[in-house]
Amino acid sequence: MKHDNSFAVDVMPSVEIRMREMLGHGTAASHACRHLDAGGNRVRARLALDTARILGLPEATNIAVAAASELLHNASLVHDDLQDGDTTRRGQPALWARFGAASALCAGDLLLSAAYAALVSAATSRTGRAVAVMHEAVAATIAGQVDDLSATSDLSFERAIDIAGAKSGPLIALPVRLCLILAEIEDDRHVMRAATLLASGYQIADDLSDLEGDRLAGTTNIVATSINAGHSVSSARARAAAYARAQLAASRDAARTVPRRAGLPLAALADRVETGLAGMRVMEADHAT
Amino acid sequence: MKHDNSFAVDVMPSVEIRMREMLGHGTAASHACRHLDAGGNRVRARLALDTARILGLPEATNIAVAAASELLHNASLVHDDLQDGDTTRRGQPALWARFGAASALCAGDLLLSAAYAALVSAATSRTGRAVAVMHEAVAATIAGQVDDLSATSDLSFERAIDIAGAKSGPLIALPVRLCLILAEIEDDRHVMRAATLLASGYQIADDLSDLEGDRLAGTTNIVATSINAGHSVSSARARAAAYARAQLAASRDAARTVPRRAGLPLAALADRVETGLAGMRVMEADHAT
Repeated sequence: MKHDNSFAVDVMPSVEIRMREMLGHGTAASHACRHLDAGGNRVRARLALDTARILGLPEATNIAVAAASELLHNASLVHDDLQDGDTTRRGQPALWARFGAASALCAGDLLLSAAYAALVSAATSRTGRAVAVMHEAVAATIAGQVDDLSATSDLSFERAIDIAGAKSGPLIALPVRLCLILAEIEDDRHVMRAATLLASGYQIADDLSDLEGDRLAGTTNIVATSINAGHSVSSARARAAAYARAQLAASRDAARTVPRRAGLPLAALADRVETGLAGMRVMEADHAT
Repeated sequence: MKHDNSFAVDVMPSVEIRMREMLGHGTAASHACRHLDAGGNRVRARLALDTARILGLPEATNIAVAAASELLHNASLVHDDLQDGDTTRRGQPALWARFGAASALCAGDLLLSAAYAALVSAATSRTGRAVAVMHEAVAATIAGQVDDLSATSDLSFERAIDIAGAKSGPLIALPVRLCLILAEIEDDRHVMRAATLLASGYQIADDLSDLEGDRLAGTTNIVATSINAGHSVSSARARAAAYARAQLAASRDAARTVPRRAGLPLAALADRVETGLAGMRVMEADHAT
């Protein structure tokens, strides 16, 4: 899907270059680059760039935050695919399926560490605080992943939604939180709520479009939890779609209360996911098949 | 083995606390703590504390650098054990053997990320540079690990030594390099050489003491590479010990040229490894069985 923001499009090549610079050279770096080269919509990088523009941050900072957020997201994808045994990603073999588990572990570690280097690649007086907030987001993501890994087949609809939000929310909130910190705005209390609701609303939309495939593959699917609990397929679909719309509306409301209008790109993302509820994919799922 | 430096002993409890604070709460944090609780000599933390003392850094900085260096080392152990299939660590089941591969992957990621948070837990004006140098060390360690993983059974003695230095040198150099940066000394060119020679000298000493066990287990062992190449056991042992002594002497020489006598703790560590060449273990091997 094309992005309609010309500013973001102009700076994205610099973000792509920064990500690769931070990975350096060698086998693990080339595996990590191979993963980056396979595509992805760079939603988190674009969110960072759009938010930074509203806050009037310097371009060097914008590129650093965008590259850091995206490196972290890709680290989580590489390690999640390995843990979940997902064999494909972005229509290609997952990194572990192509190069082996040990290589994917190394490449994911390198991506994770490179995210911190990218974050400090633009000098600011608030680097320490930004690093601390990034670790907070990583720790929260890992906690969400642990919950996801321990989810059983009798998972309830509500719990599945909570897990989706807990796992993906922190890394969606992160670019916005980092921009606020670097703009010296401490009030980020609505960002996490907006991002968590957006993440779960998105996951429902994605699971609606993947329902048949996930049921065949036996993969966790939020809509399928309703079917497992006795709903008909059409009632489970309707219930999930209504729930997703409510989550996305609440996400937008929370995003609009972020200071200095810095939540508007997050609100726009919620809009795009809602538009996409008919089946169009606007973000990359953590469980893309 | 008891450490003879009373300063370091006094501050170590604060380092232990800082490491755990950075891990936070939840399942992954408790797994990571379980790994830390299993022991280890904290050689890298003590090296940080001893170096920082010589440079007159503030105590808050010393604790931050020590905790960061040790968290990183332990992240590498958790992921290495998983990759190498080593089932025991510090006389207990390795984390993956106890809690499963997915849990060990999460705990290692958390330890890695927490190292960055620990590093910035003391405010300094040189945080950005310190983070960049830490990533450099992580990337170099990963490159060494990739080489180690791809080593074949016909590995030469010299190549095995190079791999040992490349894999463990960067994280031994790191605490010293961080202290120098935070003391605003940019000249760290001898630190990496001293640490790489120390790491390989140590690994030879360790492989000398583990020779029989490693040969039975089929684990890579530097001394065994000479036996595989046709040396008798006693000639291979003598050759390896002489080589290790030379590496350690060269390490000491390099360490002594580090500015402001900041390499002396590294030189002292080389001394202790040499004393231990008779079989005493003074550092933890990356391939401890």
